[in-house]
Amino acid sequence: MIADYTDNKDTAFAKQSTHLHVHTTPMKSMGEQMYKLIGEMFPICRSITGKGVTDTLNIIAKHIPLTIHQVPSGTKVFDWEIPLEWNIRGAYIMDSKGNKVVDFANNNLHVLNYSVPVHRNVTIGELREHLYTLPETPDWIPYRTSYYKEQWGFCVSHNQYRSLKDDRYEIHIDSSLEHGNLTYAECFIPGRLKEEVLISTHICHPSLCNDNLSGIAVATFLAKELLQKQPRYSYRFVFVPGTIGAIAWLAANEKNVMKIKHGLVASLLGDGGAFVYKKSRRGNTEIDEIVSSVLRSKYVNHKVIDFNPFGYDERQYCSPGFNLPVGCLSRSLPGQYPEYHTSADNLDLVRPESLQESLELFSDIVRILEANQKYVNQNPRCEPLLSKRNLYHTIGGTMNKEGLHQALLWTLNLADGGHTVMEISRRSGVDLDLIIQACNVLHEAGLLAEVEPMNELLTADIRSRE
Amino acid sequence: MIADYTDNKDTAFAKQSTHLHVHTTPMKSMGEQMYKLIGEMFPICRSITGKGVTDTLNIIAKHIPLTIHQVPSGTKVFDWEIPLEWNIRGAYIMDSKGNKVVDFANNNLHVLNYSVPVHRNVTIGELREHLYTLPETPDWIPYRTSYYKEQWGFCVSHNQYRSLKDDRYEIHIDSSLEHGNLTYAECFIPGRLKEEVLISTHICHPSLCNDNLSGIAVATFLAKELLQKQPRYSYRFVFVPGTIGAIAWLAANEKNVMKIKHGLVASLLGDGGAFVYKKSRRGNTEIDEIVSSVLRSKYVNHKVIDFNPFGYDERQYCSPGFNLPVGCLSRSLPGQYPEYHTSADNLDLVRPESLQESLELFSDIVRILEANQKYVNQNPRCEPLLSKRNLYHTIGGTMNKEGLHQALLWTLNLADGGHTVMEISRRSGVDLDLIIQACNVLHEAGLLAEVEPMNELLTADIRSRE
Amino acid sequence: MIADYTDNKDTAFAKQSTHLHVHTTPMKSMGEQMYKLIGEMFPICRSITGKGVTDTLNIIAKHIPLTIHQVPSGTKVFDWEIPLEWNIRGAYIMDSKGNKVVDFANNNLHVLNYSVPVHRNVTIGELREHLYTLPETPDWIPYRTSYYKEQWGFCVSHNQYRSLKDDRYEIHIDSSLEHGNLTYAECFIPGRLKEEVLISTHICHPSLCNDNLSGIAVATFLAKELLQKQPRYSYRFVFVPGTIGAIAWLAANEKNVMKIKHGLVASLLGDGGAFVYKKSRRGNTEIDEIVSSVLRSKYVNHKVIDFNPFGYDERQYCSPGFNLPVGCLSRSLPGQYPEYHTSADNLDLVRPESLQESLELFSDIVRILEANQKYVNQNPRCEPLLSKRNLYHTIGGTMNKEGLHQALLWTLNLADGGHTVMEISRRSGVDLDLIIQACNVLHEAGLLAEVEPMNELLTADIRSRE
Repeated sequence: MIADYTDNKDTAFAKQSTHLHVHTTPMKSMGEQMYKLIGEMFPICRSITGKGVTDTLNIIAKHIPLTIHQVPSGTKVFDWEIPLEWNIRGAYIMDSKGNKVVDFANNNLHVLNYSVPVHRNVTIGELREHLYTLPETPDWIPYRTSYYKEQWGFCVSHNQYRSLKDDRYEIHIDSSLEHGNLTYAECFIPGRLKEEVLISTHICHPSLCNDNLSGIAVATFLAKELLQKQPRYSYRFVFVPGTIGAIAWLAANEKNVMKIKHGLVASLLGDGGAFVYKKSRRGNTEIDEIVSSVLRSKYVNHKVIDFNPFGYDERQYCSPGFNLPVGCLSRSLPGQYPEYHTSADNLDLVRPESLQESLELFSDIVRILEANQKYVNQNPRCEPLLSKRNLYHTIGGTMNKEGLHQALLWTLNLADGGHTVMEISRRSGVDLDLIIQACNVLHEAGLLAEVEPMNELLTADIRSRE
Repeated sequence: MIADYTDNKDTAFAKQSTHLHVHTTPMKSMGEQMYKLIGEMFPICRSITGKGVTDTLNIIAKHIPLTIHQVPSGTKVFDWEIPLEWNIRGAYIMDSKGNKVVDFANNNLHVLNYSVPVHRNVTIGELREHLYTLPETPDWIPYRTSYYKEQWGFCVSHNQYRSLKDDRYEIHIDSSLEHGNLTYAECFIPGRLKEEVLISTHICHPSLCNDNLSGIAVATFLAKELLQKQPRYSYRFVFVPGTIGAIAWLAANEKNVMKIKHGLVASLLGDGGAFVYKKSRRGNTEIDEIVSSVLRSKYVNHKVIDFNPFGYDERQYCSPGFNLPVGCLSRSLPGQYPEYHTSADNLDLVRPESLQESLELFSDIVRILEANQKYVNQNPRCEPLLSKRNLYHTIGGTMNKEGLHQALLWTLNLADGGHTVMEISRRSGVDLDLIIQACNVLHEAGLLAEVEPMNELLTADIRSRE
Repeated sequence: MIADYTDNKDTAFAKQSTHLHVHTTPMKSMGEQMYKLIGEMFPICRSITGKGVTDTLNIIAKHIPLTIHQVPSGTKVFDWEIPLEWNIRGAYIMDSKGNKVVDFANNNLHVLNYSVPVHRNVTIGELREHLYTLPETPDWIPYRTSYYKEQWGFCVSHNQYRSLKDDRYEIHIDSSLEHGNLTYAECFIPGRLKEEVLISTHICHPSLCNDNLSGIAVATFLAKELLQKQPRYSYRFVFVPGTIGAIAWLAANEKNVMKIKHGLVASLLGDGGAFVYKKSRRGNTEIDEIVSSVLRSKYVNHKVIDFNPFGYDERQYCSPGFNLPVGCLSRSLPGQYPEYHTSADNLDLVRPESLQESLELFSDIVRILEANQKYVNQNPRCEPLLSKRNLYHTIGGTMNKEGLHQALLWTLNLADGGHTVMEISRRSGVDLDLIIQACNVLHEAGLLAEVEPMNELLTADIRSRE
């Protein structure tokens, strides 16, 4: 019918393109593999510094190549300073009969993270001043930290707390705070372009699965997938302790961040909640648009929310002096599920199928990011003669071919260096994958040239006529 | 009351302006005249080249002055090449008894347009491979073409097709494909400005009335009307074979198209359908705004649709390398009325009153285009003293005068070189014709100066304060 | 909870700021004081020139320092010319028995404002041609003027008009039209910035309270209040005869008006109507935004209307050659309350509590204008460490502190030199006063620097990354 409408007498035939990215490893098994990785990392007591971080990075390094960076204690990073390195060997509360009523060996959440070392006898009264509990969920141990105020403490279930008798207790926290390093790691995957996509995930939490072993696992497996490809963008995965680690990374990379064209913070990706995307501070960047669009088209239940200066390391990436195009993708939001920052955020909370779905979403986003180029029609004045390039429409062609024919004409018309592939799809109403296919067909036929990000200015003259 | 509100003590009195364009020929007869012209052109077998085109142009030339352009076969026009010239003297299918069962002399749609010459005997089986029919409307002959693939064929009604017996047939298509020319014509009407309005219409279809003898007739009579005036813009009417003709015209005028400030493709204007305006690719040009506004204010039933790369020669004018402000105005859309591209698109389908209404719409659009200037208040600092210019408000004046008084004050306030007449009307809520009247009154009084398109930049400084 | 969400480990504690503007004089008494001032000015016969204006300015000068400007008759001011100075000593209509049936001494509205002098006997018929009445409100005397057409007349109640017998009358208008001056006054209050806020009010009406002794009174007391402060902006209060006075002021200040960053025309502020704000011609200026926002947040009943070229002196300030960011704030609109321009616009129409409310609204607008700065985060790369600046969050802090904590983080994030305080409030959803408080706290802590209007360009580089 289209051929009739247009009186064109010259229509297009689609060679099936081989450009679409296809997952080469069966995705089904990925969720299980990520869950296994989480199980391996779970027992380690992590913090913003110390051996727990390096142990964790060593496990990740079995899957993807990592570059380890160490920043010495006392280093100034913008307004902050790298703290002393914290390590812990054990900790307990022992009653007068010699029973360890609370033992770090059972759960590393029991110690207030970054607790100073202590070893002495205390009354029940003094002890209680150093105990943290969750009265509303009396079986769960809370997760608490004190990075920047020197103190000691124990986190216990409220039931444990109530069972403590009027006794004298030996308390022992065998920790150390010494000059050392803050450690973070990068996995860099070079692409055709120098422009980078940043995937950042925090690695500072002890035995908590969703927050954030899930983010670590999804980032690791996404990197693994990309290592098998030759992506257009370069990809930089950063595994950093929250806040201070991201600040240290930004301080070390202050001159390089202009390369970051898109970014995502990966966090809380293993529970069963619906996806939530928090937009970058700019609010209208390409990554904001792409994530929103993928969520809209594939996930009935999801939320897209505006940027706010709370949350994870997007706070630093989106501070006004950087203002990077970095959003945050998670399932449940921090603080908005009951198990958040408690001992119940364990291996029961995260599910292989949720991890699987999260990885598929990240893969989809990457697929669109890779495809979402701008092209310039190399024959921009009047329509090109499609027939002489064998992009020919057979009479009475199937609707599918007509779909591609439409996609070809729309793409030729809008490929002015100003519209991205996604914008062509939106403006034409033609399915995104069909536009991607048309771009590939036309690119192979020499009718489209890619606009590399650095060349965008040069093509602006076509646009300026509008 | 306004005088009271404003404490102005100085108000305006309207001299009845004589500037409004008035149709000087009784419009009622125009529809009949256009219908008569269509009748004269109907029998001719047109194609994208050949004698049919020149015969048609000769008829148009009896109404308006035309400049004829010829482009030789083989000339490169952008990605295309002018084909051999096609001419046809006759064609038939004769059965073994000597009966001409199909004869070009009866209807020139019977021959596949651009058919190669052929003269031989064929079996019923071979013949059928070269026949085109419309099974759903078995009385109608389809219109089919094959410009860029060398083949022969006949178009017949499905009833004719079914009545063919198992016989041997003599088929004869007395056509020629020879080195010659593609022909198009222009009617140029110079105005006060060098900036041009383009009216383009396709002339390549054989005996089809709505598509597009109707467009040709409306364009011809619009040109006739403008020839009696001294328009502000220059007007360029182009009569071109579809697609290849528009491409040839653009190739020949590549350097001149920047003069085109507004344009319309005129097509399918004689049937009884409601008007459809397809916007230019830019989507927000002055012509888009004006046509939409006129349709909204005068035609309850109408559609305004976004640009798409299907349709008529707007596809070429709006290709990304040109991106001209050209929309397409028609009644029924191509392919969306049953008679489209069939022998039923004949003198019964088009009606004088529809042609009349189409011409009136084009006239209205031209009237607004002509009036839709930008003006600069020559006394921009504080209100001018209207009383000393005899633009005085009589006490207790009629509502009509108050309407004009309001129009005067609004026009003085918004005539900053940045607002068009239409924008002044929209922002003030005052009827467009009243604003046009106010502009004329104030212009005569020396309080407004016209902004010519080329001077728009110079007046931008007034705007820049906003 | 916020502290938990963010994993920030570093939160803010609010010192109670002392920066909020607090009214130091009990506002309750202001309404009465303004009403008293109106009572003092009421008996004077004002016009666009003459002794009534100077007498009025002398009364205002008892409250605030005024600079008096005189513009001689005949001076060209843009398209206009200062008229002869009008003064009047008395006027009456006396019947043949010597009864003064109409006496200027009873009400100065009785004389057509700007009447030429006259003293002679007339028939009832001739007299009637010079009488103006309001048949629908037969007790009220209309207010009429004839500034630019030389004539004489009396304004009388319709009852008086009907009681006039068939008699001969001595009519006497002891006025003079002589070379003199047009007088206006300014009260200039210098601020830290050279950029000015204009408050303009018209002073040309005779014994009419709402129109516009109310505007004069509110402007005077607003100036009085500002004189006790050290404002950021400079404030220029102008007391001008309507239209011709504003035109004269603009003519004298043509080179200086670029300093005006915001402005309001103050008029009709004493009656009981709901507030109406008419936006500036630009329609999207800061003053438009602030007045709209204050009205929206504090006054259920109010209207915000678009600019139109009718009304008071905003017509001149917003003429296209000036296009100043000046709106008009009033209660009832001109012409839209029954007492408008009649003797019923007297001391009974205006109420102290309405004047009080009007002054409070202007004070509020000024408070927001003063606070609505742009700031630049002095530690823009990553979050600053709030704890080391004692902006620390106590655990389990009250919601109020959490509110301020949120305000601090939002302000730090959006203080990029591109967002005003009001924009930070709108984007964050945090109450404006809390954002103002956060700005003050952060400014004191050295974390924010103010952007002076003249420095705005220099900070654009932070913005340009967006």
